[in-house]
Amino acid sequence: MKSDIDRLMEEADLDALLVLGPTSYNPNMVYFTERIHLTFGYLLKKRGQEPVLFHQSMEREEAANTGFEIKDLGDYSFEELMSESGGDQQGAVVLRYARIFDEYKVQGRVGLYGKVELGPGFSTMHRVADVVQNVEFVGELQDRSVLARARATKDAGEVDRIRRMGEITSAVVADVAGFLTAHQPKNGHLVNREGEVLTIGEVKRRINLWLAMRGAENPEGTIFAVGRDAGIPHSTGQDDQPVRVGAAIIFDLFPVEARGGYFFDFTRTWAIGHASDELHQLHQDVLDVYNSVYGELTAGKPCRDLQVMTCERFEAKGHPTVLSSPNTQRGYVHSLAHGLGLDVHEAPNFWHHESNKDVLTPGMVFTFEPGLYYPDREIAVRLEDTVWARPDGGFEVLVDYPKDLVLKVLGA
Amino acid sequence: MKSDIDRLMEEADLDALLVLGPTSYNPNMVYFTERIHLTFGYLLKKRGQEPVLFHQSMEREEAANTGFEIKDLGDYSFEELMSESGGDQQGAVVLRYARIFDEYKVQGRVGLYGKVELGPGFSTMHRVADVVQNVEFVGELQDRSVLARARATKDAGEVDRIRRMGEITSAVVADVAGFLTAHQPKNGHLVNREGEVLTIGEVKRRINLWLAMRGAENPEGTIFAVGRDAGIPHSTGQDDQPVRVGAAIIFDLFPVEARGGYFFDFTRTWAIGHASDELHQLHQDVLDVYNSVYGELTAGKPCRDLQVMTCERFEAKGHPTVLSSPNTQRGYVHSLAHGLGLDVHEAPNFWHHESNKDVLTPGMVFTFEPGLYYPDREIAVRLEDTVWARPDGGFEVLVDYPKDLVLKVLGA
Repeated sequence: MKSDIDRLMEEADLDALLVLGPTSYNPNMVYFTERIHLTFGYLLKKRGQEPVLFHQSMEREEAANTGFEIKDLGDYSFEELMSESGGDQQGAVVLRYARIFDEYKVQGRVGLYGKVELGPGFSTMHRVADVVQNVEFVGELQDRSVLARARATKDAGEVDRIRRMGEITSAVVADVAGFLTAHQPKNGHLVNREGEVLTIGEVKRRINLWLAMRGAENPEGTIFAVGRDAGIPHSTGQDDQPVRVGAAIIFDLFPVEARGGYFFDFTRTWAIGHASDELHQLHQDVLDVYNSVYGELTAGKPCRDLQVMTCERFEAKGHPTVLSSPNTQRGYVHSLAHGLGLDVHEAPNFWHHESNKDVLTPGMVFTFEPGLYYPDREIAVRLEDTVWARPDGGFEVLVDYPKDLVLKVLGA
Repeated sequence: MKSDIDRLMEEADLDALLVLGPTSYNPNMVYFTERIHLTFGYLLKKRGQEPVLFHQSMEREEAANTGFEIKDLGDYSFEELMSESGGDQQGAVVLRYARIFDEYKVQGRVGLYGKVELGPGFSTMHRVADVVQNVEFVGELQDRSVLARARATKDAGEVDRIRRMGEITSAVVADVAGFLTAHQPKNGHLVNREGEVLTIGEVKRRINLWLAMRGAENPEGTIFAVGRDAGIPHSTGQDDQPVRVGAAIIFDLFPVEARGGYFFDFTRTWAIGHASDELHQLHQDVLDVYNSVYGELTAGKPCRDLQVMTCERFEAKGHPTVLSSPNTQRGYVHSLAHGLGLDVHEAPNFWHHESNKDVLTPGMVFTFEPGLYYPDREIAVRLEDTVWARPDGGFEVLVDYPKDLVLKVLGA
């Protein structure tokens, strides 16, 4: 949580954090600025102090809405800086950083953050480090950084925002189920009243529309993968393909608040009209493992233990897994879960490697998504919910939705 | 254009370009990979050679669709690299770069590109530069880089994509006009048949919906600013405010292809029902300057000359401008234009500073947007089209749309 940042900075021996870039689609900046819209800014947070937000002159009012101390970058005359740097534009930016660091007494190890173009960021910070004395820039690993570790646990406001995205997600999932079941089967495909084949592309366009209506965005796309494609976890489905009756459909939706805020992540597996016995069995196996491993969620448990347990329980049912066959493309081929927040994948990590030291901690929000994949048999099942590790030690599926496999349609 | 890259690399004394990150919402990567979806990759382009695309194992098929030589990052065993680096995760990534640079004989000055988290990018590349001999990483200024300069002129395929976005944009603008004029005036505001006041927020929600229906995204938001807000170029309008009859409305729409491709940029100024004489006059002044400066577009002309000319013509009509009053907030307060493509603002630059050496060149696509702002009088007008400098030396507004000020509604 944000309240952990100072402690985490101390652990990482960081004296300050410097976050660059816009306040949209920039998770580490959005973490501080929330719903404020700046096209560009610097956020400087010294250990033990509140952040200072440096903004462009035109965006003063918006910057002030953060409640942080703000500082107009226009106060550092660019013409003066340009003249001092002999007309070197980057040199002027470097001098501006030097003045800011001097004025705000920034010294020591400074963690660098922000999603920006690497080239200018790399060369500018390189030059700043040369010019400014007693400052060392630190680029922590993305999933181990101070902000990644702070973000891994959510406060009540963050959980509310994720839950709200979950409510939008489940409403759109219900829209999709209603849309599909308003079609009729014909020659193994869904068709509309005019007899036109329903394509995956059309389903995805509707999903974007229904999300937009509710104020959500879908920048990472949707997985709506049928048959063999469902068996390949990375496949998102082919737009020109029809929606087949009876086939396994993996429907994975991970929308985000407008302008890049909190995500939700949700998957159901559907078969339209009917499902083969083998697909029913696969669904039941996933559901069994879902229920039994969910019951093992306990604050303080290492995340990797849950992945190991999931593998073992799938193996007990006769499925290959990444535990005993690390390169398997059949059976259980991925991780049980991942943290979720301002990024769709963030800490904690649930991979079973021994190097993974992440532990289930109150405040974490994470997916829970056991699955089985048999691309050669054109079947697969994944069931995914988003789970909150509550402060009271309990665990809660943030937004519930039925897990039925078969979507009934007339005539199928 | 892409065909200029090798020449521009030679001019900038770059031996290779290295572009990092996903192939969505990452302009310098999308420039090469177009509509391919990789969650992460490296694109390496040596001068005089075709690019090589390094991809994750799971994304092999998608990477192959680029037609580039591809290389599976999984071919560099991460466990081997981890063991060699003594379990240092970043060290393993650094060693992988070292192997790639050795195998692909990368030497000399390497330009860094890609929108990624600065921290890990900064520290990883720093370490790579320490480990690999004879390689120097170069971070060019964003608007002067080899790729920025290549991207400043567009080939026929790029122009087609921008024009297609323009067609979507103008269709949505027409939708908005139709939606507004289907309302009635009441107490100075637009209301629906139930007498409910139409808010700016509702108009913006519809815009996102109509864009989504046509497959476009709107990541940068919409400007729909009324009255005093219209007079502040940066203001996007306040969602909870009603749509006022007779007030100046600046409507600026800049959507993008799905997953971050080519943008379009378009502005009209509307008054609903009627406009004051003073607003009519302002609109006419902008239209006059639009038409007269548009007539001066000539291949080979310095971009700054057009800005100077625009200022002079506005000043001749009695308006203050940034030419003689650099800090003015009234009159003509911004630049005439900006290049447009995979970023909504890119090269060329039209600012009037003498340091601006950009020249109108066949293939450029740029906005053309004279405007006048009087926030104290609550009026403003901006008219913006997207213009293509054709290979034959002519100039063409990519998608035309009427420039009328007054939108007629019944009863106003």
